Amino acid sequence: MQGFSDEERDRIEEDLIETGRELLRTYGPRKTNIEDVTDPVGIAKSTFYRFFDSKADLYIAIVERESDEMLETFAAEIDAAETPREALERFMRCLMEFAETNPLIQYRDAFLNSISPEKMKELGKRQFEEYLPLIESLQEAAGPPLAEYDPATVLGVMGVAEYLAIHKDEYEMYREGYYEEVQEVVVPVLARGLTVAPDD
Amino acid sequence: MQGFSDEERDRIEEDLIETGRELLRTYGPRKTNIEDVTDPVGIAKSTFYRFFDSKADLYIAIVERESDEMLETFAAEIDAAETPREALERFMRCLMEFAETNPLIQYRDAFLNSISPEKMKELGKRQFEEYLPLIESLQEAAGPPLAEYDPATVLGVMGVAEYLAIHKDEYEMYREGYYEEVQEVVVPVLARGLTVAPDD
Repeated sequence: MQGFSDEERDRIEEDLIETGRELLRTYGPRKTNIEDVTDPVGIAKSTFYRFFDSKADLYIAIVERESDEMLETFAAEIDAAETPREALERFMRCLMEFAETNPLIQYRDAFLNSISPEKMKELGKRQFEEYLPLIESLQEAAGPPLAEYDPATVLGVMGVAEYLAIHKDEYEMYREGYYEEVQEVVVPVLARGLTVAPDD
Repeated sequence: MQGFSDEERDRIEEDLIETGRELLRTYGPRKTNIEDVTDPVGIAKSTFYRFFDSKADLYIAIVERESDEMLETFAAEIDAAETPREALERFMRCLMEFAETNPLIQYRDAFLNSISPEKMKELGKRQFEEYLPLIESLQEAAGPPLAEYDPATVLGVMGVAEYLAIHKDEYEMYREGYYEEVQEVVVPVLARGLTVAPDD
């Protein structure tokens, strides 16, 4: 990249991701302009496009960064579990906590529309590559019936817990505390359903 | 209501709901104006507000109408099941099919923001009242452990299947056919998890 050493380039990319993460968390995507991100980093607005194609592209990089961090948490939680079923429960609780507490999740719809299907597929593929080894080792430790599922399917099944968390407000509108009631049951129900033989 | 007999009033309300349902399904909420609904019904725009407070209010009435129709389907599906577990699976498959095929579901976010929390609570309460007897009779037939859950919690747990269906496109972006793969496993997993003893 013209004008920057590899080291400078890495530093700037890192700064853009971290500054973008802070600004998006605090102000949201509408109130965050490219200049808001480039000014503190000390580069011109036009230089931004040497690193990212768009604001949505920066968003993806931020989500990937957070996903990497989450992956470490997942691995630690799974290690701490005494049974495969408990590991599944811990994994889902992490997913839900992440969705509940991460302020960027609320912007996902805004960005999902501006991400191309190709990029989305690539993002999905990369997430699969990162998460599937975790699921696979969990399946290996558990044996059948958990081991008999496609690991991607197991990941997708646990992913419904995340959707529950994303729609937390809707559950709460039905009645106060309803989200917690459902969450408390759905996590062990999914873990049990995945680890019990189909004809039990 | 001034100027209308009870019979006329009922006929007009019915026509507004059916006309609104057709128009919203076909053109969506942005392209559907109040006049588009009142013109075919043969009433003035201002008269609309004697029946509904807003377009969102009409949307609620339409959703309630569809929910009533769905309730009949649910009852028939549960009747046709040979075991409680099968009944749970049939219930969830209905929920998902409804979410997948109902074109109004895609407008829910647009309307959710314009519905007051009070109205939403009332709507939730009415849905509970309609659906809970179904769940309760299912629980009674099943015995423990299904019978030991709060019926509203059982309903909420099965509701995650609907969220999966609402986010169908996102699953499909990860890889083709992924939604179906996950759906095929999540339904029996939830049904099994709800009907197997916690320590099994």
